[in-house]
Amino acid sequence: MTPSRLTKLYTALRTSGMDALALNPGPSLVYLTDLHFHLSERPVVVLFTPDADPAIVLPELEMLKLADQPMRAFPYPENPLEWEPVFRAALNSLGLDGQRIGVEPRAMRLLEFRHIQSGVPGADFPDASGVVSSLRVRKDEAEVAAMRAAVQVAQDALQTFLPLIKVGVTEKELAAELVVQLLRSGSRPEIPFAPIVSAGPNSANPHASPSDRELQPGDLLVIDWGACVDGYVSDLTRTFAVGEVDDEYVRIHQIVQDANAAGRAAAKPGTPCAGVDIAARSVIEQAGYGRYFTHRTGHGLGMEGHEDPYIRADNPQLLEPGMVFTVEPGIYLPGRNGVRIEDDIVVTDESAESLSNMERTLRVVG
Amino acid sequence: MTPSRLTKLYTALRTSGMDALALNPGPSLVYLTDLHFHLSERPVVVLFTPDADPAIVLPELEMLKLADQPMRAFPYPENPLEWEPVFRAALNSLGLDGQRIGVEPRAMRLLEFRHIQSGVPGADFPDASGVVSSLRVRKDEAEVAAMRAAVQVAQDALQTFLPLIKVGVTEKELAAELVVQLLRSGSRPEIPFAPIVSAGPNSANPHASPSDRELQPGDLLVIDWGACVDGYVSDLTRTFAVGEVDDEYVRIHQIVQDANAAGRAAAKPGTPCAGVDIAARSVIEQAGYGRYFTHRTGHGLGMEGHEDPYIRADNPQLLEPGMVFTVEPGIYLPGRNGVRIEDDIVVTDESAESLSNMERTLRVVG
Repeated sequence: MTPSRLTKLYTALRTSGMDALALNPGPSLVYLTDLHFHLSERPVVVLFTPDADPAIVLPELEMLKLADQPMRAFPYPENPLEWEPVFRAALNSLGLDGQRIGVEPRAMRLLEFRHIQSGVPGADFPDASGVVSSLRVRKDEAEVAAMRAAVQVAQDALQTFLPLIKVGVTEKELAAELVVQLLRSGSRPEIPFAPIVSAGPNSANPHASPSDRELQPGDLLVIDWGACVDGYVSDLTRTFAVGEVDDEYVRIHQIVQDANAAGRAAAKPGTPCAGVDIAARSVIEQAGYGRYFTHRTGHGLGMEGHEDPYIRADNPQLLEPGMVFTVEPGIYLPGRNGVRIEDDIVVTDESAESLSNMERTLRVVG
Repeated sequence: MTPSRLTKLYTALRTSGMDALALNPGPSLVYLTDLHFHLSERPVVVLFTPDADPAIVLPELEMLKLADQPMRAFPYPENPLEWEPVFRAALNSLGLDGQRIGVEPRAMRLLEFRHIQSGVPGADFPDASGVVSSLRVRKDEAEVAAMRAAVQVAQDALQTFLPLIKVGVTEKELAAELVVQLLRSGSRPEIPFAPIVSAGPNSANPHASPSDRELQPGDLLVIDWGACVDGYVSDLTRTFAVGEVDDEYVRIHQIVQDANAAGRAAAKPGTPCAGVDIAARSVIEQAGYGRYFTHRTGHGLGMEGHEDPYIRADNPQLLEPGMVFTVEPGIYLPGRNGVRIEDDIVVTDESAESLSNMERTLRVVG
């Protein structure tokens, strides 16, 4: 349990007119309580209200995890038919029927929600994503240190991995090897996402899955990878040339590199997220490739690989010191090749710092 | 898309009185369509109805994934404010308002559900878990082959890993190294769960997380690990002695080994899941340790680490050929040490076969 975060949570709940917060397992629960549960067929719910210790509904066999957490525990046995009254008892212990109980739609499943709802049929369930995010979005010193370490681990892993890139090796083989290097370099086994290793036509798909296609001379090679340290993640992308590549590919790589630099330079306290997106996007638009930059410029980063703030042209949210996000412009020529260059940025008191510093120029591999 | 599975789905939906099925990203979607999406802040929903091609709501930037899937695509742009009408159009294209739309509560999040619900305010959303599970629970030949391979990869990885176990190494270090060996042995990077490596008091917690505690002579060491091959997973546990251990620990290991054998021997077509649980549990109860076996005997296995059928004393579901599940009895002495031995079993036409065959006796390591 992290009391100072709970105090902030209760203030934010009151400000938003909510009486309680219901969380299922995931990053917000870890952030507030340091409790790690898997999402499984056994629902786990923690109920937070300003004036009492939190209540937790959990499987009996998980009771050991609570250790000395100041929580009221409502354990249930293995048979799902016996879960309903346990949920009801937990909700009633906090007097939650008829109240406004905030939930996180992105994390809460119907499995947990329906158990809660049938326990307090008179309650409302407003979206509390913004309440929780208002705490999580500004990283403290320890959080930034963890993210800096996660970036360093990812960069170290790529450095060791680069010599393995050869014509004839498949995307899947490279992706598997990159994971090994991430772990050897110090990432937690819970890497934030399976690395994207995509070459040639597959690199023109921003969310490609590594395929059995072998690297070929003339390919662009997009590598999008990240590490996890102390529960915080990194998320980087670099694009490489497999041998000699078409002139246009060299050109679009330079454009994306300039867009990445422009996005990073635009980040500072008080600038809207939109400002960063527009700074990067206009470089690509002015070069005539605007319609091939098909996604937002970036997303927040922290305990999750995607979180607030989102760097979109329509997001007026103002940047504040401690916010961490990616700047990752790209150009994707369908059926041909693609480029993306991604860095992780922390907003400082006066500007912003890139946590990642690995070379961004188009390097030849293979 | 797998047409034969869709045909079975539509029959099962009709039998259950449902008009449609709504799925978000996850194993059931992969099973029916081979479409892989991440769960993210961008909702993806596929709507299945018997008399039309499925409809899919997805981010514009994911359109490439559809390739030549026979689906009606409803792509949305980056701004969440523009998503609602896209969901409504998809739902209306199939005439779903006022209909019974099945959902999987364990997979569906409020993020997707609320978008669906506001698009068809007159619809009902019954639990379709059983409908989808009735297809997925009986594995075909190719699925069993993938699981056999996933077991072999896990066993190979442990064999390579065993010499690294030494007094003084921490649980976390061992867990990280075991993941490396899983990948090197051929597991997909999406391993089904972070390995549990727990020793001494931590081994008495069935769902322990690896800690910074170093292995000590006299510890029992529980290793619970699995691999993923072609989208199917394995899940095994073995318990080791770190040097010489207390006589009682040798005794409870033998009891658990006998319980594991009794559970495996009880599995055959027509036997209720409860029969397998009771066969394993009664061995432990008769030895006087019943209250230290705090969980069910096993769970189904397939595309997910936990799925139907659940091997509980109160589950009357009858075993059928092709069902795959774990048999994993345990004895946990709180604050002291624990034992678990877990194998993966496939029900055959006349009995059952253990996919895993690694030595089950108490081996000394360290």
